[in-house]
Amino acid sequence: MAKVGHFCNEKGNSEFRVFAPEKERVAVVLTEKSRMVPLNRDELGYWTGELERLPHGTLYLLEVDGRRFPDPASRYQPKGVHGPSMVTEIEAARSPGWTGVKMEDALLYELHVGTFTGKGTLQAAKGKLQYLSALGVNVIELLPIAAFPGERNWGYDGTFHFALHSTYGDYQDLKQFIEAARELGMAVILDVVYNHFGPEGNYSGAFAPYTKSAATPWGAAINFDGAYNYGVREFFLENTRYWLQEVGFDGFRMDAVSLIFDNMPVHILREFTDLAREIGRAEGREVLMIAEHLRNNKYVTSEKGFNYHSQWNDDLNHAVFAKLTGETTRHYMNFGSFGDVAKALEKGFVLDGTRYDKYHRYFLGTDGSHTRGSEHVVHIQNHDQVGNRLLGDRMIVTYGRDKALLGITAVMASPYVPMLFMGEEYGEQAPFPFFEHFSEQVIIDGAREGRKADFAFADLEPMDPHARATFEESKLRWEQLETPDGQAILNYYKQLIVLKLAGQLGPRDKAGVKVVADESTEIIRVETPHTLTVMNFSGNRRANQPAAGWEPCLCSGKVSEAGNIEPYTAMIYKRTD
Amino acid sequence: MAKVGHFCNEKGNSEFRVFAPEKERVAVVLTEKSRMVPLNRDELGYWTGELERLPHGTLYLLEVDGRRFPDPASRYQPKGVHGPSMVTEIEAARSPGWTGVKMEDALLYELHVGTFTGKGTLQAAKGKLQYLSALGVNVIELLPIAAFPGERNWGYDGTFHFALHSTYGDYQDLKQFIEAARELGMAVILDVVYNHFGPEGNYSGAFAPYTKSAATPWGAAINFDGAYNYGVREFFLENTRYWLQEVGFDGFRMDAVSLIFDNMPVHILREFTDLAREIGRAEGREVLMIAEHLRNNKYVTSEKGFNYHSQWNDDLNHAVFAKLTGETTRHYMNFGSFGDVAKALEKGFVLDGTRYDKYHRYFLGTDGSHTRGSEHVVHIQNHDQVGNRLLGDRMIVTYGRDKALLGITAVMASPYVPMLFMGEEYGEQAPFPFFEHFSEQVIIDGAREGRKADFAFADLEPMDPHARATFEESKLRWEQLETPDGQAILNYYKQLIVLKLAGQLGPRDKAGVKVVADESTEIIRVETPHTLTVMNFSGNRRANQPAAGWEPCLCSGKVSEAGNIEPYTAMIYKRTD
Repeated sequence: MAKVGHFCNEKGNSEFRVFAPEKERVAVVLTEKSRMVPLNRDELGYWTGELERLPHGTLYLLEVDGRRFPDPASRYQPKGVHGPSMVTEIEAARSPGWTGVKMEDALLYELHVGTFTGKGTLQAAKGKLQYLSALGVNVIELLPIAAFPGERNWGYDGTFHFALHSTYGDYQDLKQFIEAARELGMAVILDVVYNHFGPEGNYSGAFAPYTKSAATPWGAAINFDGAYNYGVREFFLENTRYWLQEVGFDGFRMDAVSLIFDNMPVHILREFTDLAREIGRAEGREVLMIAEHLRNNKYVTSEKGFNYHSQWNDDLNHAVFAKLTGETTRHYMNFGSFGDVAKALEKGFVLDGTRYDKYHRYFLGTDGSHTRGSEHVVHIQNHDQVGNRLLGDRMIVTYGRDKALLGITAVMASPYVPMLFMGEEYGEQAPFPFFEHFSEQVIIDGAREGRKADFAFADLEPMDPHARATFEESKLRWEQLETPDGQAILNYYKQLIVLKLAGQLGPRDKAGVKVVADESTEIIRVETPHTLTVMNFSGNRRANQPAAGWEPCLCSGKVSEAGNIEPYTAMIYKRTD
Repeated sequence: MAKVGHFCNEKGNSEFRVFAPEKERVAVVLTEKSRMVPLNRDELGYWTGELERLPHGTLYLLEVDGRRFPDPASRYQPKGVHGPSMVTEIEAARSPGWTGVKMEDALLYELHVGTFTGKGTLQAAKGKLQYLSALGVNVIELLPIAAFPGERNWGYDGTFHFALHSTYGDYQDLKQFIEAARELGMAVILDVVYNHFGPEGNYSGAFAPYTKSAATPWGAAINFDGAYNYGVREFFLENTRYWLQEVGFDGFRMDAVSLIFDNMPVHILREFTDLAREIGRAEGREVLMIAEHLRNNKYVTSEKGFNYHSQWNDDLNHAVFAKLTGETTRHYMNFGSFGDVAKALEKGFVLDGTRYDKYHRYFLGTDGSHTRGSEHVVHIQNHDQVGNRLLGDRMIVTYGRDKALLGITAVMASPYVPMLFMGEEYGEQAPFPFFEHFSEQVIIDGAREGRKADFAFADLEPMDPHARATFEESKLRWEQLETPDGQAILNYYKQLIVLKLAGQLGPRDKAGVKVVADESTEIIRVETPHTLTVMNFSGNRRANQPAAGWEPCLCSGKVSEAGNIEPYTAMIYKRTD
């Protein structure tokens, strides 16, 4: 494995290495100086050349058989995805003594740089770190920051996997963000998209077959196993090394890895986790690898499988959400029963291969009983669960505070790793609908039509993903935090988190968590050695009298008279000593 | 797993079970009686119905939403792939005391029923079993016999995976063939094609999504992991059970399994081998699972991988063939050096991930050093290696007897499982070019054009695959066997086989085989505790004086004066006692 794109070599010179195995001529064009530097092909199709150290900020293009394109391995695209690439100095985050956060101890916070603050920059986000730390967050997960078309996008349409999106800031901002987070005890991990290239501004095909005929819902799949796959595999493995080692992230959330198809002897997903773990060992810090796989496949996190530390688990979300809201369209269609909530808390996977999955139309999943708690990342909100709704509405807006707080209580009481979606901790009301800022009309139309097709069953139209207003509407409304309601909700979250981080509530060990579900009352009791969580999933007041030895500690909603629990309410008890 | 198509249930009645999960109405149409029997859908999309025992020979079609098709799980298509299906009584081969043949002991013989004899039937083939047994064959491998369009075809265009192709005979013929083979100590295994359906006469799509968007070179890939995959998986697993248990084959050669894509938690290839091994255990006989994977992937035959007993290994063939013939086009392009022959003999895989594969254009393969000898099936001829040539010519025709016999000597001296291609043992000269008998013009044209495109680099045109003459030309010319040349070649093969089966030549254990290659003379010496094989891969007479203790036993060509070995000649020595 060697570096790709422009980098500074050991002699201090600028070096280029470009994979273009079927091309006749490749050259670097220094656009401001009208200078062209031809590169030389090696036998595997890498084109290399060395020249004097180019200063930070030098703009360049690559000329391939007479046509000019930005560098697929560009580190920065100051003028957007269609513009020149930029020679970029990058310093890794330096945090002496930093050893990271273990998966078992993690409390994740998912954050979209563009909408987390009004300014939508890394610098502005840095201003909130103290707040996040006080909340109890110890792992910040950034939605993808790889350069995408236009100014706004969730991030999953990125086309330059090595380039920090320019409207978010520069690498100094990123370094400072990571370092500041670590000083507060928080790791920073990155959402990376290795399953496709975005639909606009993807010039990689002009260089090499980075994609192949197999399809993902968002475009051609990556060519990890066809002709020239070695250059493609190296590109993405090098990308892993780059973000973890050269930039200094503490791990990845890898997007939609079930759509990374690989027929090679060792699956590329395993190569990613091997590499990340090796970097972590070499640098003496935890490097966390979290997969969004969503097929309830226990091998994703098993040593004999892909060996991720953890994977996103949607079943707890779907089970709780569908039970509380009665929504049973789309991805909720398998859920809605009380029993599924208990199964999610006990077994990990509700869809475990034993029952028909009406949404995917097959028997999805494996038995999760023997997975560890830390192998599941759970949530009651995340960018997809909120965003992939007709109005991008948050649970609290549509279904009220009681259900939302019962939901997060189930997440925290579970023996799994909890993840918050920015703002939910103070009852944020802003929606998070899909937004983009493509410039090609056919792609803009395609995104709009795709959105409409997703929600064809509904009467309303989804928000226009291209409208600037859709993006602006999605920005957190921090003023909500200052309201009494915001403070009360935040306070409840903080108390849950204190118990969770202390291992008293939902320790990341299923053996330490006893789940008792009563179908007739729709009450679930989750008991650990330290706490008893009673959750009323019914719409009725229920009798509730814990045995002696438990004293009330926390209530998600209205405290009932003794001996009862209100509808859609959770009560947490601590052991009396 | 339950039966599919028509079968006789425990009550002795006829039962149908048809997978059509998105259809409105499915019925059985008894075509001769103009009778229609509606089937009932269960919740998973299986349509079932029971009626009085239909006699053997009853013709039927399935009506799906008003249109009529043959049954995808038809056992017999007496009027071809476009005609009705037939209710068929099948008796499994019964061979008391039969325990099969172990992979380590196997000597395979690949046989195409249609061209093995003039009549091209199983009955006629049965007449040759005594001959095969006398030759030393212990595993007969039939090219696919699943019903294909028209009268002639290699077999890889089959569209009814459960149906014995009708021009080959009926199930009584097949039963008698298997039983007669076993009486002579020979197992019979079947080549099955689970990676695609043939291009003509495939009505499966009218029932369920058996195929998906991913492509193989021969058509859409099988849908083992998309919506409704449970019905597709069951169909093929049931097919495995059917041929092994209901018909009674002793194993499979599975065609092009690297093109069976599966993203489910447990790969369908592993499910096939698990099922086959379970059947073997239950019935107390060896059931052999051999993969044609051809990616030099050691996990295909490892316990933690797909767990096949063995897999086809083309590297020894390519290394020997390219070295001896100088051909370096197409799949030979990675080969031609003397060193590769020695590497193939020693390590198993020549392309082992350490060097660029110019044909596939990536670093194909894994290190084969630690595989067992029985994990590799090797050959100097097979249907593909002969057939996928411009003229379908056999090595002996184009390159002469010396090189052909040196080639088979390398195969036998290797520590791997040898496979012969019908007729090679007596120097058969008939070609084996691709032939088919499609009836749809666009498919006929497609096959012709595909063939031409494969050989665009050559001056000559390939033989017309559709012409009857191409098929007739391919039939074995048994009269060759009766010539002095034929007898001499047969005699050499027999002697090699005697040594091989006795474990004296190329025992299936790499530790017992020492390979010494001399680059300067192009002589390879393969030594076992019992034999020394000296192979001269050069075009020159070379000095050859084995140490004391070895006495000449066998020579592939002209015996040289003492102290020498002729060009392209092998000498085998036995230890003097």
